[in-house]
Amino acid sequence: RADALGRGVDIALIALIVVNVLAVTLETLEGWPGPYRPWFDWLERISVAIFTVEYLTRLWVAAEDPGPRGLRGAWRRRLAYMTRPIALIDLAAILPFYLTMMGMIPPADGRALRAIRMLRVLKLTRYSVALQSIVAVFHSERRTMLAALVIVFIALHLSATAIYLVEHEAQPEKFSSIPEALWWALATLTTVGYGDVVPITPWGRAIGAVVMLLGIGLFGLWTGLFASSFLDELRRRDFKVTGQ
Amino acid sequence: RADALGRGVDIALIALIVVNVLAVTLETLEGWPGPYRPWFDWLERISVAIFTVEYLTRLWVAAEDPGPRGLRGAWRRRLAYMTRPIALIDLAAILPFYLTMMGMIPPADGRALRAIRMLRVLKLTRYSVALQSIVAVFHSERRTMLAALVIVFIALHLSATAIYLVEHEAQPEKFSSIPEALWWALATLTTVGYGDVVPITPWGRAIGAVVMLLGIGLFGLWTGLFASSFLDELRRRDFKVTGQ
Amino acid sequence: RADALGRGVDIALIALIVVNVLAVTLETLEGWPGPYRPWFDWLERISVAIFTVEYLTRLWVAAEDPGPRGLRGAWRRRLAYMTRPIALIDLAAILPFYLTMMGMIPPADGRALRAIRMLRVLKLTRYSVALQSIVAVFHSERRTMLAALVIVFIALHLSATAIYLVEHEAQPEKFSSIPEALWWALATLTTVGYGDVVPITPWGRAIGAVVMLLGIGLFGLWTGLFASSFLDELRRRDFKVTGQ
Amino acid sequence: RADALGRGVDIALIALIVVNVLAVTLETLEGWPGPYRPWFDWLERISVAIFTVEYLTRLWVAAEDPGPRGLRGAWRRRLAYMTRPIALIDLAAILPFYLTMMGMIPPADGRALRAIRMLRVLKLTRYSVALQSIVAVFHSERRTMLAALVIVFIALHLSATAIYLVEHEAQPEKFSSIPEALWWALATLTTVGYGDVVPITPWGRAIGAVVMLLGIGLFGLWTGLFASSFLDELRRRDFKVTGQ
Repeated sequence: RADALGRGVDIALIALIVVNVLAVTLETLEGWPGPYRPWFDWLERISVAIFTVEYLTRLWVAAEDPGPRGLRGAWRRRLAYMTRPIALIDLAAILPFYLTMMGMIPPADGRALRAIRMLRVLKLTRYSVALQSIVAVFHSERRTMLAALVIVFIALHLSATAIYLVEHEAQPEKFSSIPEALWWALATLTTVGYGDVVPITPWGRAIGAVVMLLGIGLFGLWTGLFASSFLDELRRRDFKVTGQ
Repeated sequence: RADALGRGVDIALIALIVVNVLAVTLETLEGWPGPYRPWFDWLERISVAIFTVEYLTRLWVAAEDPGPRGLRGAWRRRLAYMTRPIALIDLAAILPFYLTMMGMIPPADGRALRAIRMLRVLKLTRYSVALQSIVAVFHSERRTMLAALVIVFIALHLSATAIYLVEHEAQPEKFSSIPEALWWALATLTTVGYGDVVPITPWGRAIGAVVMLLGIGLFGLWTGLFASSFLDELRRRDFKVTGQ
Repeated sequence: RADALGRGVDIALIALIVVNVLAVTLETLEGWPGPYRPWFDWLERISVAIFTVEYLTRLWVAAEDPGPRGLRGAWRRRLAYMTRPIALIDLAAILPFYLTMMGMIPPADGRALRAIRMLRVLKLTRYSVALQSIVAVFHSERRTMLAALVIVFIALHLSATAIYLVEHEAQPEKFSSIPEALWWALATLTTVGYGDVVPITPWGRAIGAVVMLLGIGLFGLWTGLFASSFLDELRRRDFKVTGQ
Repeated sequence: RADALGRGVDIALIALIVVNVLAVTLETLEGWPGPYRPWFDWLERISVAIFTVEYLTRLWVAAEDPGPRGLRGAWRRRLAYMTRPIALIDLAAILPFYLTMMGMIPPADGRALRAIRMLRVLKLTRYSVALQSIVAVFHSERRTMLAALVIVFIALHLSATAIYLVEHEAQPEKFSSIPEALWWALATLTTVGYGDVVPITPWGRAIGAVVMLLGIGLFGLWTGLFASSFLDELRRRDFKVTGQ
């Protein structure tokens, strides 16, 4: 029965996080929140209250978990818990509210505060073993990924320099500098292809053709790398979206 | 010989479904159906007649199938069949016609009716074991896919908030709100890259670069996930496009 | 030594095909061929002469190959060879020239003739075992691929109908009919994303989001399907770009 | 301790290469380097000095490495080292500076010199075993890749010719020639989809649909090919981003 209760609390907390994300998103719409201002304010206060209770409860319970280092003493264990990334995310979800209330943050810049409130979406990671798996994958495959990023780095810079040399005269505005050319090279290499910057000269298009084919190659490298790593890691663990 | 006949009927029904889909599609073209109106009306009437015969036949024959629950009694079996998704699709293909005829649906909104008629394309799922396999894959991999969607959800919202903060002032029309920014983030993460909304400031492009690389990573995750799951499932069964 | 000679002839023929493709391509450029007209004409005549010799030689030599059916008699074997796809490609590379010369094809429509001459690029398939492997893959996996195409067909039509219903009023020109909507749906499902047709209403974008995510899924299905099939097949054979 | 020192030198050299790449990139921005001109000049002089010391040291040390051919004699070994690609990259990083200084290269064309200085990014390959693995993959899979390129070549030219025939009259500017059509075909086949050239006629879009679906197929071929090859190769070696 305790399990069913814990599951119910988890689902309620997930719902609250999603509602919070939705609220931050909707507030930026023109004409919003308008007359609904008080509703949003109350949602914020209630959310912070619930998240605070959640944080303190988890902190309190942490005293029973010796952790990988086998710590002794309730407060030492709690302190160790507080420095874990997942606890810092929980703290970041409530601290800004209290700091603003105490006047330690000027309430002026609404947009920055909004961005900080969006960080609450990270609280979902607690309920998704998958995302924690991805962190594990990144850790175990960090060398391979760094190597792949080095290849992308080299390909990007050589492509951008080549296209800059060739297209600069034909389109001095669009290919005005290598950083601008890098933007084109990245959009092409990743096959995103916005089309806001496009080569028009024959030589520029020849380079573009090479970059596109290279892009598919690099795409295959990345995709294969991530896919196999993630699959290994994701399959190993049992996926549960609930429970810590 | 019965098999050859059944196969012939299947092919005829598949052809009829495709002709129906084509008719719904063509009717929306400007100047269509025009003088061909009666032809389209007759196609509709004949199709409904055939689909009705098909539905009743399948319903009748269902009496012989005890199903996974080993039901007894012809009508109980038929009732059980009627609630299966594949039977509901068959019903949805004919019911609106009769309801409109009986005056229970106002014939006014031609476009809604057209959309309902397009649902007949779903009748093809009966002839493709593959699509039924996909449903099976979705069921067996629902946790992994939910986890992947959680990751996409988090990545989308953080990307959108970041780009909104950075680009809002430079392009107040295109990045007017976080929902607008979400549209950009999704088009970039999935490497679709329409180019209708594109960052132009250096910091916006830096965020864009991160989202593009993240997109390839998530793409790899999704692709690997789906690919391996589908492959497992699709290979297991023998693919037959004919036969139930 | 005979082997080295055969290899040299192969390379010379490959070069001639590429030069032909290049010639057809360049002829369409504005201001071309202009004064170089005679050069192009001579290239055409010499190419046809060489390809004719090649065709007749292969036909002659075919008398020594009993083929899979163990045919007897030189001319029966030659006739069997003539109906093979690879021999038809060779014939299509030379026949139009002779038919035009004999006045059996009006030389008027230069563009259609150009397209037929471009078919010579298919002669390269003889030198690439890989392309023949792809045909083999298509044959052995035809059911799986048909199933995948059925899924794409259903997803495309439902997406197009949904977006048409939702976006038609906001963009009557761009989403004027379901065929137009199909174009958008295909560009989105395949993650090509031209950006020439893009939803602008909130509901249209919601559908667009679903189609994008669906697109990645279908992309994964296709990619996984093709990738694994091609890999199986391509690896099995030894790749040689030379030799028949 | 010697190992820690070598690691420190490696990191310092990597940092210097990245700073050089950044400098070349930033110099192209409008209004740059401006008053910072002397700083950039000094960076160049110091970099060349360090890279020269590095080159000479490596050349000197090469005397101790007999190489795969078991060469004897210090100077023969050094000569053999000088002709290796990795040594040529090191030489290309410093030679242009000295040639310009000696007046052997006119200092006029700043842009060409800049491009040559960007080649220093290739020096990173020394520190990434992954990129050397890619070269190895290209070598061992060269036949498969050539075969895949032949398929792409054929698909591109047939697609381009078809779309040119169909769209030329509707859009004589965008599909003015087959080379222009090739640009569209490549952007579609690789799913980049810039959207700068897009078919508008029904038949053009029908061809576009085929090319898109073909593109996904070829994408799957490429991705599967590269992914599996790279993975094999990358996994085999231990990834170290440091050390020679």
